[in-house]
Amino acid sequence: MSVETLDHLTHSGIEAQKIPAMQDLDASKLAIELTKSPRKVPELNSAGVWSCKECTDHTLELASKNKLSFAYPSSVLTVTWLEGKGWGTPKIVPYGPLTIMPTASCLHYATQCFEGMKIYRGYDGKLRLFRPDRNCARLVTSSARVSLPIFNPVELEKLLKALMKIDGAKWLPKSEPGNFLYLRPAVIGNGEQLGVSAPPEVLLFVIAVPWPDLSTGWNPSTDKKAPGLKLLASKNDTRAWPGGFGYAKVGANYGPSFVASTEGRKKGYDQILWLFGPDYQVTEAGASNFFIIWTTKEGKMQLITAPLDDKIILDGVTRRSVLELAHERFIVGSEYLDSNIKPLEVVERTFTMAEVVEAKNENRIVEAFVSGTAYFITPVSAINFQEEEFSIPMGGGETGYFAGALKKWLMDIKYGNVDHPWGVIVEED
Amino acid sequence: MSVETLDHLTHSGIEAQKIPAMQDLDASKLAIELTKSPRKVPELNSAGVWSCKECTDHTLELASKNKLSFAYPSSVLTVTWLEGKGWGTPKIVPYGPLTIMPTASCLHYATQCFEGMKIYRGYDGKLRLFRPDRNCARLVTSSARVSLPIFNPVELEKLLKALMKIDGAKWLPKSEPGNFLYLRPAVIGNGEQLGVSAPPEVLLFVIAVPWPDLSTGWNPSTDKKAPGLKLLASKNDTRAWPGGFGYAKVGANYGPSFVASTEGRKKGYDQILWLFGPDYQVTEAGASNFFIIWTTKEGKMQLITAPLDDKIILDGVTRRSVLELAHERFIVGSEYLDSNIKPLEVVERTFTMAEVVEAKNENRIVEAFVSGTAYFITPVSAINFQEEEFSIPMGGGETGYFAGALKKWLMDIKYGNVDHPWGVIVEED
Repeated sequence: MSVETLDHLTHSGIEAQKIPAMQDLDASKLAIELTKSPRKVPELNSAGVWSCKECTDHTLELASKNKLSFAYPSSVLTVTWLEGKGWGTPKIVPYGPLTIMPTASCLHYATQCFEGMKIYRGYDGKLRLFRPDRNCARLVTSSARVSLPIFNPVELEKLLKALMKIDGAKWLPKSEPGNFLYLRPAVIGNGEQLGVSAPPEVLLFVIAVPWPDLSTGWNPSTDKKAPGLKLLASKNDTRAWPGGFGYAKVGANYGPSFVASTEGRKKGYDQILWLFGPDYQVTEAGASNFFIIWTTKEGKMQLITAPLDDKIILDGVTRRSVLELAHERFIVGSEYLDSNIKPLEVVERTFTMAEVVEAKNENRIVEAFVSGTAYFITPVSAINFQEEEFSIPMGGGETGYFAGALKKWLMDIKYGNVDHPWGVIVEED
Repeated sequence: MSVETLDHLTHSGIEAQKIPAMQDLDASKLAIELTKSPRKVPELNSAGVWSCKECTDHTLELASKNKLSFAYPSSVLTVTWLEGKGWGTPKIVPYGPLTIMPTASCLHYATQCFEGMKIYRGYDGKLRLFRPDRNCARLVTSSARVSLPIFNPVELEKLLKALMKIDGAKWLPKSEPGNFLYLRPAVIGNGEQLGVSAPPEVLLFVIAVPWPDLSTGWNPSTDKKAPGLKLLASKNDTRAWPGGFGYAKVGANYGPSFVASTEGRKKGYDQILWLFGPDYQVTEAGASNFFIIWTTKEGKMQLITAPLDDKIILDGVTRRSVLELAHERFIVGSEYLDSNIKPLEVVERTFTMAEVVEAKNENRIVEAFVSGTAYFITPVSAINFQEEEFSIPMGGGETGYFAGALKKWLMDIKYGNVDHPWGVIVEED
């Protein structure tokens, strides 16, 4: 299956289950090595959680010898690479350091991609993943974009469940419903050759780590709560470009963005609002998607976000879920909508900072929020554009109505307050 | 010193020596651990050389605890990070795998950059680096672009020499003049926190590896010699963009380019000729800079290459050297120029594929070549643009006159046939 075809599949809404197995990634071959040195689970909201480094007891590891791709092979090594073709045996091993040669592709050429997802301990006592099929399919798309091997995403989903079946009960105890772990699948180019081309060996691994809830605005180092994100619109730094890779969750989109975000933090802003082009198109915020709710000049209420067409923004799983829920629940006559709230029109199209500023000047902005796995649904409280900061309404409190409703609906799904196909139960012993 | 200032310094031609020490990188603190298991040096042009993985006996390693930069620190860990601030003791240790936590920034967020340089065993028996000050200064620029710490490049140059003083005699024996090793300094984000921000720990390392001579067109796996590179001009894939990071030698420029280069190789092309914008500006080729020599419509001979102004192409050390040599030696009345060869005008400006195609149609193209550390000076034999391939003159043989002259002059400097300030001698015991 070509990169183009796969890309089309995973971006066109076709379910991941329909993508056939390209390599022999096979969850049924899983080998498990249980740890002899159990790790300590950090207390809720403790320093350990905020450190984002206290991984769970085990790592899911999947090494591969990929097909020969180095441009200047020696005949001896050619055989070795071809012999090792395809995905190996998936293993669950005790958490610990990776051994990586200094020549490995992932350290030099950013042959790396990852997923961000969470696993939730529900109020019904069950463990749930949220739409894991979408994350697994996107990891395949991202892998292909940086010349890493593709795989059957259905098998990866099985492996994620297997890892959580082992570490879930201890790290997300049933006695603490409403908590979550951050799951990080990653694919990296490995091996020993420094040549500038697709890596001949690849490692897929998955770790799970307690993660702070970034959506509330509470920072334990200051014990201050500041709901709402302040965004700095960046005119000079461009995150992505048509013909580039902004749509893929590849490492190359992140490291180069840190200069702008660090500068933003120094100026008192939580995230960068990434703009594109001479007309300052609004794309995404930080590492999250960005939504505005405004009243149009014609008096319609509208939820607007940047489109996927030009492939410069990430096809966020939360973004997609927000759009789908809004289409279903913010419409005229919805039982979910408060009777005193106007229904919304849901729009994906290119929009510019000029439109945002005009709407602000005419008091037409109702709310804004970001969506993503790390920040979930977090309202935006202010935007700085061209050295001028303007505030965004937040319903007079910690969130506006629409962001609040979306967050509650999604939490109900994730924590099992309602039955919904997006909340995928992980069986435990 | 801010990123902007540094950037300006290293891009404006100011010598690296004038950049003050920003962190306490100090070559005089170097600690050396000699190997107890000497590695085998591969034979010249053997499979081992073409594998690009047979590193020398030792690695130069420099771990750092950088200043606190994670946005959501816990108070306990804050102290730990601040205590470890600044560059640690440089060490030379036996070559071997790195131990990297699965949460390390370099594996997920492409917080990584590198340099490509070579060390040469001269015909006078001496070891030489080629303009190492420029590579060391560029590594500082690249580090800053992906939020890695900056350092005094002069200290790094001292450390490179210390590494080669240990491994040079064995891996580049005096009995084999005219050979070289590839030197790879790299800076990677390390540490244990998965948070999406600048890494709190950093590792600088340097390895040296035998590397094939890619400039001759000889491939040992087929034993066929095909001088000249065939380039595929890419209309759909964009390597870099204004406001991005195309000027820096960061991993993020490489991995995402492999899809296009692999597709190119399948179609029979050695490298991608990267274009930019709706007018198909010619930027660089593969991971090398790109030059054309043509006759203008007015009848002038001209050497043309893309400019550095918009920061989308790499500021190549070989590119800079080609321009400086051309300015000095291809001018009217130069003693270096054959009497029957017309002098050149040297031009750095944006030029487009339309200009190239017009020059081809009017038989005005004289030569084209790429420049870089890996490919040195390699002539271009053909370009495919919009499904049409056209050939480029190569002087009727293995190289055109100008590419040939530049290559010879640079080799004379690198291998000590002439004394030149660009050839920096590495003292040996």
